[in-house]
Parts: sequence; C-alpha cells; structure tokens
Amino acid sequence: MKQKSLKYYIPLYIYTFISFTCELGVFDLLLQSQKPMSAVEVAQKLGTSEDGIERLLDVLVAIEIVDVEVVQGTAFYSSTDVANLYLAKTSPKSLHDLIIYNSQTIYPLWNNLVDAVREGKNQNEKTFGLPSEEIFSAIYRSEEEMLKFMGLMNSTWVIDGHDIVTAFDLSSFKTVIDLGGCSGALARELAKEYPSSTVTVLDLPAVVQTAQRHFAQQDDTICFQEGDFFEGEIPPADLYILARIIHDWKEDKNLKLLKKIHTACHPGGGVLIAEALLFENRRGPTMVQMFSLNMLVQTEGKEHPPSHYTRMLTDAGFRDVQVCQTGKSYDAILALK
Amino acid sequence: MKQKSLKYYIPLYIYTFISFTCELGVFDLLLQSQKPMSAVEVAQKLGTSEDGIERLLDVLVAIEIVDVEVVQGTAFYSSTDVANLYLAKTSPKSLHDLIIYNSQTIYPLWNNLVDAVREGKNQNEKTFGLPSEEIFSAIYRSEEEMLKFMGLMNSTWVIDGHDIVTAFDLSSFKTVIDLGGCSGALARELAKEYPSSTVTVLDLPAVVQTAQRHFAQQDDTICFQEGDFFEGEIPPADLYILARIIHDWKEDKNLKLLKKIHTACHPGGGVLIAEALLFENRRGPTMVQMFSLNMLVQTEGKEHPPSHYTRMLTDAGFRDVQVCQTGKSYDAILALK
Repeated sequence: MKQKSLKYYIPLYIYTFISFTCELGVFDLLLQSQKPMSAVEVAQKLGTSEDGIERLLDVLVAIEIVDVEVVQGTAFYSSTDVANLYLAKTSPKSLHDLIIYNSQTIYPLWNNLVDAVREGKNQNEKTFGLPSEEIFSAIYRSEEEMLKFMGLMNSTWVIDGHDIVTAFDLSSFKTVIDLGGCSGALARELAKEYPSSTVTVLDLPAVVQTAQRHFAQQDDTICFQEGDFFEGEIPPADLYILARIIHDWKEDKNLKLLKKIHTACHPGGGVLIAEALLFENRRGPTMVQMFSLNMLVQTEGKEHPPSHYTRMLTDAGFRDVQVCQTGKSYDAILALK
Repeated sequence: MKQKSLKYYIPLYIYTFISFTCELGVFDLLLQSQKPMSAVEVAQKLGTSEDGIERLLDVLVAIEIVDVEVVQGTAFYSSTDVANLYLAKTSPKSLHDLIIYNSQTIYPLWNNLVDAVREGKNQNEKTFGLPSEEIFSAIYRSEEEMLKFMGLMNSTWVIDGHDIVTAFDLSSFKTVIDLGGCSGALARELAKEYPSSTVTVLDLPAVVQTAQRHFAQQDDTICFQEGDFFEGEIPPADLYILARIIHDWKEDKNLKLLKKIHTACHPGGGVLIAEALLFENRRGPTMVQMFSLNMLVQTEGKEHPPSHYTRMLTDAGFRDVQVCQTGKSYDAILALK
C-alpha cells in the first residue's frame, strides 16, 4: 500500500466523491464501529437518508475503499486499511483535511475555471466575493477557513515532508527558519531528521496563534515566531525554507523576497524551496499542470520548471543551485549564499 | 480509436477540465485553423489570457488531446483526431453538448451531494432555486436549459443509440412510439435500422417544438407528436420505447406508466427500455453507480439491476422479459404484451 496510490491514481471523480464521503463522516464511523454496519445503521448514526448512503457505500465497495459482507440478505459494510489510514480523520496519516479543502474550496473555485482562463486571474471574487488581489485574505477569510487551509498544509507535510527534508543533507544548517511554515508540520519533520538544528516557523500572527491552538504538540521540537516575511523583517539564520510559497506569487514579488532572504542569510547559509516541478517544457507531469491551473484560479502564481527556480535564485544572488526531483509529490531545490 | 475510450477511461478530473476547454471553444478553433497555432494566437482569437490558455493547452498536450510542435522556441498547437471527432462542436459524433451539460449543470449539482445524501432527495432547490418535486421544471427551466438538456440526450443517442436499437430484432414492430424521445436521435437510429417501421417521438409540446426548431433533419425519417405520457393519452402502437425515462422517477409512478403502456399496446406488441444496468448486487459498474448518485442529486429516481426491471414489467402485465447487456454505455430490456 503505497502512499501515493490514493493521491495520484484514483481518478479525481472518485476523489471528489470520496471528499463528500469524508464530509459525511462515513470513514470515521466505520473505523470507530467495532463491527460491520448495515446501511440503515450508518444512516441512523450519521443522520442521512438510507437510500443515499446505500448508493454511496456501494460505490465505495466497487472501488475497494469499503468492504461488504452479506448476511441473510442484508449488506454489512466495514472499513478497509486504506480508508482507515488515509481517510479516517483520526489517523496520523489522514488526508481528511486535504480532501475536505479540495471539496469545499477548490471544487467551487474550479467551477469558474473558464473565467480564470479568460481573465488570466484568480476567481476569489466570483467564488467567494473577495478581492482577487489579496490572495491570503481570501484563503484566511475566516478562522474556520484558516483552520481548513492549515489542515490542508498540515496533511501535505505530514505525508510528504520527509521526502523534502531528506532530499539534501541539511545537517550543517544549525538555525533554520521555515517562512510561511503554517502549522509547523514540515518544520517538525526537519527537526526530527536533524535534531541538532533549531527550527523556527515564521508566519503571520493569526496563523501562529491558530497553529499553537490547534496543531501544537507536547514537547514540541520547533519554535514559532510571529512576523510577515514580505512586509516585516526576516531574522538571520543558516537556512530558510520556502515550501509552496513561491508558486503563490508573481515573479517580481518572489525575486524581491529571495533578495531579502539573501541579505538576511548567514554566509554559507542557504535557502530550500519545496514545490512540485513541471517538466522543463511545461508539458507534464499532468498533476503538476493541474496544480498550476489551480494556482490560476486561486492565487497570482503558477508552477514552474527547474530552470525557472535556478534563474530566480541566481538573480537573487544565490549560488550552487541543486535541484532534487524526488519522484514523489513535491521536489526540493537548495541554493547557497 | 474506440468510442468508449473518451467517455469512460479518461478520469473525470480531466473530463471536467476538458468541459471547460470545450466551453472556451479551443477544440473548434484548432479544428477550423488551417495551421498549428501559438498560445498567443489562440488567446487572441478566443479573447482569453495568454498565460491561462497556455497552461490549458499544455495539459491538453500532456493528455494527448492536442499536438504540439516547437518552431524556433515557440510552441504551435494543433488538434488531434480524437479531439476533432469527439470534442469539436461540428463533428457528427461530437460529445460537446454532453460535456457542456456536465460542466454547467451536473458539476454545480454535485457540489451539493452531501446534502442529497443527507436528505435523500435532489438538490434542484439549493442549486438552482427550483422546487425539488418537479424535476423537469428544473431541467427545462429556460429555453436555453431545455436546449442544453436536449443536446445532451441527442449526443448520447447519436453515439450510443445504435447499440440499443440492435440489441434485439425489432423488425416485427411496425408502429413505434418513443415516449419522451426528446430530440429524436434514438428514434432516427431505429428508423434507419428498421426502414419499414413508422417511428414517432411523443414528448411535451415545448420539447417537440424545440426539437423541430433545432434538431430537425431534411427528409426526416421520424414524426413528432405533442403529448404528456404521464397526464395525457398514450396512442396505440406495436412498440413503445422508454429510453432513460424509468431512472428519473419513483417506483409507483413508473409502475403506473408501464400499466398505462400495457393497456395502449397492440396485442403482441411490446416495450423496450434503455437504461444503464447495475450489477444484480448494485456494487458496480462504477460508472452506473455514479449515474445513480447523479439521479439522486438531480431527479427522484435511481439506476437499477436487471431483476428490478423484470419485476416491474411483469407487475405491469408484460411477459417474456429479455435483458440485453450490450457491454457499451446503455443496456436494453424488451418485454412483450
């Protein structure tokens, strides 16, 4: 059971459909239940119609996400390992928050993809009634939405963070700041891999406060610092992480940010970028192309091929740019000062 | 190049994405163009952003729906056989109308799938502000919407109608009435296969008028008759066709309709039902299960396994029920009076 199987190889029509099933709490209920449940029992527990839940459960059986056993003419449904691991909310490797974000935020945005292509800009205004210029005002438009987005990011790095922090040997960087590090999931992966490094997440005050309220861990291995890496100061450090930050913004804004990081960076230090890389000719991988379309409907940025990052980092004053294509969901680029 | 490939085996996330591309007119433009076009040219002709259309075109290249050739650093895009055959609006086998219907009507309805499962009823009210009880008031809520739905049905039977009319030898039925025959596409397939039969489409007055305005053919092989097969009379005939009608309605309404047809039917005549059949245990095929979920969000009906139709037809007084699973998109069931 590979981690990528669920994220990449189940067609999204099933994926979208799974997100609705997550929303209803089907996988959590089946995991908690000590025994297989009939559609009638599931409907009673979740407060849904029997007919609707039965149609859903039978598709889940067909795609092998739920098991079924028929006893005296009644179907009894139970969860599978893959559902318990990735779809139940309580699993440490749960994709639940990522899936809910897709269903509640990405799905309605894509409804306006035609206009996004026509206008060449995000559809936050049409979809959510929020100005297209301030992309994080839209993403963080309420505490609930902020928590959902942070859940998405948290899921992402709980699952894919290890690939990023092990793409290069980062043990020589003793102070690390994850700029826009959100819930801290990637920073924690880094602290686990390099226990002698000090890892700090720098993010907007509201994000840091929400991270501490909802994603804090006992004996946490990382620190949080409130700040704004665009408008405010960037503290000195050996290594800066920009994980899925660059793809949100226009080129000039990114270049200005990288120059600012270069100035703050200790000599011999560096910057680690985590993004999904397009092929050099931009004609694949399809999933990254879809991410890039998603950046079109939601942000002001896009996905790029390796050469784009290399050029941008070089223009900002960095040297020795190394690109590591992990073969997994996200790739890593390291550059030194 | 099999007809089914595009409808069934391209995951719907690409399918949904293709629908937006159809809506923008990309495939029509590339077909009409006598030479490959750059993204800049496509953007100018379609009035879109260059950046947005380039991202779209590059995904289409990745999934092999569009070809690309790079000349002196500029990418020139051209259409493929599969796009010209199925996606360009002007192709006789075009899926264009079916795809647009999916994108503009089905996509927003599925946004409320969670509520459909909770409430066990369609989401026309939440999605379109129309009463959930009158499903065809929603489907035919404007002339434009009626035309879109008729386009969907027309695409369906232009592509899949031949499988239905050849599932059984229907040559002995000299007068045939297609109840709710919509644009007449299935009726025309039947008239072509059985030229000695008289084939009539009976549908609501507004549908018949729209069919004659938009789907009429020179030297048409079929007749149209205005009527309401639920509320009004059903004229006598040898064979009645019910193509994708039963799956829209509740069981009691269907049974009443079948009894009414049985009464009107000439002795020795019959009824031919065209629907996508579920497996007997309802746990597949996945595409039919998805249709059934779609019936939940849009209608008051559902998809059924063969035994359900057999029982219903027998209860209505028919005999000799034969089921033909075509292995294609839709199956056929024939019963005699």
